[in-house]
Amino acid sequence: MKLQAREIDIGTRTPTVILNGADAAELGAHPLDRVEIDHDGGTVVGIVELTEELVAEGELAVTRPLGHIEGEVTVTIAPSPSSASYVRKKLDDIELEAGEIEDIVTDIKYDRLTDAELSAFVTSIYTNGLSRAEIVNLTESMVAAGETMHWDQAVVADKHSIGGVAGNRVTPIVVPIVAAAGVTIPKTSSRAVTSAAGTADTMEVFCDVEFGLDEIREIVAETDGCMVWGGGVNLSPVDDKIIRVETPLSLDPPGQMIASVLSKKKSAGSTEIVIDIPYGEGAKVPSLDAAREMAEDFDRVADALGMAVDCAITRGNQPVGTGIGCGLEARDVLAVLQGEGPDDLRSKAVTLADILLSACNCDESAAAILDDSRALAKFREIVAAQNGNPDVTVDDLPIGSHTATVDARREGRVSHANNRLVNECARRAGAPKDKGAGLDIAARVGDAVEAGEALFTIHAETAEKRDEAVRFARENQPVRVNAPDEALVERYG
Amino acid sequence: MKLQAREIDIGTRTPTVILNGADAAELGAHPLDRVEIDHDGGTVVGIVELTEELVAEGELAVTRPLGHIEGEVTVTIAPSPSSASYVRKKLDDIELEAGEIEDIVTDIKYDRLTDAELSAFVTSIYTNGLSRAEIVNLTESMVAAGETMHWDQAVVADKHSIGGVAGNRVTPIVVPIVAAAGVTIPKTSSRAVTSAAGTADTMEVFCDVEFGLDEIREIVAETDGCMVWGGGVNLSPVDDKIIRVETPLSLDPPGQMIASVLSKKKSAGSTEIVIDIPYGEGAKVPSLDAAREMAEDFDRVADALGMAVDCAITRGNQPVGTGIGCGLEARDVLAVLQGEGPDDLRSKAVTLADILLSACNCDESAAAILDDSRALAKFREIVAAQNGNPDVTVDDLPIGSHTATVDARREGRVSHANNRLVNECARRAGAPKDKGAGLDIAARVGDAVEAGEALFTIHAETAEKRDEAVRFARENQPVRVNAPDEALVERYG
Repeated sequence: MKLQAREIDIGTRTPTVILNGADAAELGAHPLDRVEIDHDGGTVVGIVELTEELVAEGELAVTRPLGHIEGEVTVTIAPSPSSASYVRKKLDDIELEAGEIEDIVTDIKYDRLTDAELSAFVTSIYTNGLSRAEIVNLTESMVAAGETMHWDQAVVADKHSIGGVAGNRVTPIVVPIVAAAGVTIPKTSSRAVTSAAGTADTMEVFCDVEFGLDEIREIVAETDGCMVWGGGVNLSPVDDKIIRVETPLSLDPPGQMIASVLSKKKSAGSTEIVIDIPYGEGAKVPSLDAAREMAEDFDRVADALGMAVDCAITRGNQPVGTGIGCGLEARDVLAVLQGEGPDDLRSKAVTLADILLSACNCDESAAAILDDSRALAKFREIVAAQNGNPDVTVDDLPIGSHTATVDARREGRVSHANNRLVNECARRAGAPKDKGAGLDIAARVGDAVEAGEALFTIHAETAEKRDEAVRFARENQPVRVNAPDEALVERYG
Repeated sequence: MKLQAREIDIGTRTPTVILNGADAAELGAHPLDRVEIDHDGGTVVGIVELTEELVAEGELAVTRPLGHIEGEVTVTIAPSPSSASYVRKKLDDIELEAGEIEDIVTDIKYDRLTDAELSAFVTSIYTNGLSRAEIVNLTESMVAAGETMHWDQAVVADKHSIGGVAGNRVTPIVVPIVAAAGVTIPKTSSRAVTSAAGTADTMEVFCDVEFGLDEIREIVAETDGCMVWGGGVNLSPVDDKIIRVETPLSLDPPGQMIASVLSKKKSAGSTEIVIDIPYGEGAKVPSLDAAREMAEDFDRVADALGMAVDCAITRGNQPVGTGIGCGLEARDVLAVLQGEGPDDLRSKAVTLADILLSACNCDESAAAILDDSRALAKFREIVAAQNGNPDVTVDDLPIGSHTATVDARREGRVSHANNRLVNECARRAGAPKDKGAGLDIAARVGDAVEAGEALFTIHAETAEKRDEAVRFARENQPVRVNAPDEALVERYG
């Protein structure tokens, strides 16, 4: 069918073309079908959407991902990409071969799959699972589809947390400890999506975090470490595209998650990796059994990929550290590096750093590196390399001056400090955008408290946001106190 | 977050809003998340897409499904609709309750689910199946979500074919037989999507087929029957929206298909329905066992819905009738009504009509109604009521004058007449848009043929399209001849 092509900018991700319904009927094209478009400059494949108004009969609206196409074109029905049939195969619970997974990953990379097809891929993994061979193949294909970093060092350390625990800002303590021991650790981190702060957001209190590959290389050459935002480098872009459809469906199938983590680490050139798997009520992994199963899968898949992974199963039933939000977490980090700060944060950072040092055949002790201030010195060195103030003190850090304290309404014992609600309360106070916003937690699970005793303090940069966080805290009780001998948790029916 | 709303027309189905990436990060919104938009006129919920270019920071682009929204608005993160959590539940293979299915159907009706969520719903049905209770609830919810037709008659007959067989134009024969017996049969049919002709396309050769509900009512009051396009009435619109994502994934899970058919029939007010289930090589249903299972499910679900369904399991391994394409099928139909025409088409129509008449407690015989020309008279009456020429003869029908005959290349026996390839060959010749285009099939499976004997004749309205169909036929052999004693079908490896 001959049509007149014109460009249209609708901000679409996929190579969509929009046809009038009458033309589509003549062509025999459904919505989401593929069509081949022959134009002056060559042939491209578009994904069909229909309209009765936006595009007239005889016209073809071409979106930006397809490039510059105008004038008369010939449009014919094209077959679905073979990757779509492999998705269908996986839905039928048939194990995919390496080449089939590679085709799917390539088509995801170039946005050739519709949201419906991508979603079917994720749900097929969710309902039918991935074999270890499939996880290995998926990881390798995702690595091949993105940029990779190479290091001269034979040993490159790295760390990842499965996430879900509020606070938990161990990375800015682990990285300087490991780097101070002379082990290379080029760490990329994420920004917050639904939490109060990502490691990149917290580090931004001290220094810049957005760097390109070459700049990262210079920082690491100078200091043996870095603490930068991972979004500035194009490692495993396919993983990001899968996460885009996965997140709103609240699907995070373990096999896909393992491939996601290991593809990013392999792309980053890491050889020794410690994976933090927090479990417990309110964490991502509910039970010790589930955590062990995940650790076992990580281990086997990493083996097959020639990567050395150590999994640390940790307690995840409450926040780690006292500060929640960029400035407050930065304060905890600097305090621990100075030999003070919350014990649980120090303990967790030391444990993870020791696992990593030992995996890298380094016989130094993390606690010793912390205690003789070598970690603090290394931290200041990295901050300077990332354009920050190396002489920063706790007093320089942004802490919101509009405060409100949330007290225990009754005498009793702290029974819950819910990670999700704690994060959300800090976000209502302005985190992560307002660097000084967040919570300062005064009571930990199991603590005995008097009625009227402080559970946490809200910090905000404006009175409005503080009040909004107070309202949220009253309604949702991020930290709960029960009578010491209360057995009942919830009543049903 | 305060943003400046402006309207944008991107022909989207869903209530999408487009944010700049920086604003989305501050808001904590992922792509495909929901946001609540408070504006002067009230509050609406939009689905988030991100852009770095099309929409500037501080702006919110609002698509048409959300109505007219401009000026300052307050945007906050909204929870996913509860229906999305029921989709997730079904993915976890937990049976859905009636109210949960109703919520999903309502949100599909109002386009509140993203393609990714809709796809997850369809794949969850595909991988986990639907219980009979779920099929019943899905059918009832889909009926409630659309318009329904009511008839004064206690008995209203209807017919449906699972499809997949080329030709097979039995409806324009069954409807006049049944109506001539005094039984009301208001039949709506579809247009071709991937086939050479739908019943609505073929009837359009004789008369108009696009009518609204009131007009259909008048035609049926006058003639006891009608043969119109179903797309002109809004019966079970949710079914159409599910099919939109299902088709490109090549998913047609049986439970969903049964709900789809029965919801359309219940909405149409039908009480006695015959369902044609063709099976065999090249049909939609591969085996007799699968056909029986489907018939059993139809029966049980219809029972629960208070509908009377008779399933006819028929041979579907080759086209029915000799004409493929609108004009050629119309010729077969008129010939059968006149006591001539292909035996297989007549036989199938008579069988289905007899099943329907008996279900409606009518003791007339379909063959007798055909043979004494009452069916022909009724057909002409309905054609007249639908603004056609009641005196139409075979010579009036459009048959493409550009012809080419495809011959057997060898002596042997016809082993295959593949429905899909026969349809596609007719489409290359111009069907269904060109009413005279299609195939005239001369040989049936099992026929002994000489080398050079005609297998089928291609009819087209232009020489170019005829040649294109000839090329397709040469490459794909829609009708195949094997040596009479050849055991081998395909060789593998």
